[in-house]
Amino acid sequence: MDDPSVVDAPGEAPGPDEALVFDVFSRRCPSRATLEHATGRWGSLTLGALYESGCRFNELRRRVDGVSEKMLSRTLHALERDGLVHRDAKPVNPPRVDYALTPLGRAVAGQLLALIELVEGRMSEVLAARERYDATRERHEAAERGYDAGRERDDGVRERDGGTVTTARGGR
Amino acid sequence: MDDPSVVDAPGEAPGPDEALVFDVFSRRCPSRATLEHATGRWGSLTLGALYESGCRFNELRRRVDGVSEKMLSRTLHALERDGLVHRDAKPVNPPRVDYALTPLGRAVAGQLLALIELVEGRMSEVLAARERYDATRERHEAAERGYDAGRERDDGVRERDGGTVTTARGGR
Repeated sequence: MDDPSVVDAPGEAPGPDEALVFDVFSRRCPSRATLEHATGRWGSLTLGALYESGCRFNELRRRVDGVSEKMLSRTLHALERDGLVHRDAKPVNPPRVDYALTPLGRAVAGQLLALIELVEGRMSEVLAARERYDATRERHEAAERGYDAGRERDDGVRERDGGTVTTARGGR
Repeated sequence: MDDPSVVDAPGEAPGPDEALVFDVFSRRCPSRATLEHATGRWGSLTLGALYESGCRFNELRRRVDGVSEKMLSRTLHALERDGLVHRDAKPVNPPRVDYALTPLGRAVAGQLLALIELVEGRMSEVLAARERYDATRERHEAAERGYDAGRERDDGVRERDGGTVTTARGGR
């Protein structure tokens, strides 16, 4: 899993017994993008919402509380392209589009739901940890000032914390 | 899991047998932010990299190929605040800082690694699906033009596809 070898996306998809090693820890491995599509803010909730049953776009939007039409559409396209979601567009007017998990999508969603249930079930520990952290934030920041010495500051990034926004800059 | 009830973050952390129901599918539930910290682009790789052993900042940066110093620092702060990562800053000069998973972080990382190994192991299916999708993209986009009729277009979002970037706009 921490095999440092870098794997490129093959020109055509390898067979099931292909010896290629995929490694999300390598920035050039195509598995990293798929993991991000499946675990992204809306990707994970969309897969989780589809686990119980397939549904139409607007029902899915209600299940994934807070998602915009545009981001749900983008998310579904990425998941469909990766073969996790099946999109069934009925040739009727107005168009009727149903979404459902593929067998692969169901396997991924099952793992995601196990993670989601773990996080939901341990939130009291998380909230207690946040209180402890915030109570000693000053001390942490003092330590950071020493640790960050000489590092460029950009507080504009802080509001987008969580690691899901900024693109890596080639590991400079 | 799809309980629609909305849960607010309590003023103080509830006890372990607290009856609160946390639901990542509710936009106001604090568990959603924790899930995003754990599954974000860098959060998931950071937790996965720390699963084998704790390490110092620069070693962690090498394991998480492509992460910038700034984003790794931000990611570690979010994970530490949620109680998933323990940060041990030695009071020496130059400062020495070691990072390790907490028991809760280890449980979350274990679930994440199961997901990562599933995705890595099924990438040949994903790559085949991408080829099929791209080969029929024109047909999909034709269907989308009908489906998206009347929806605002913003191709600027397309390059940031994957659902991990744009913040929900209150489910307009």
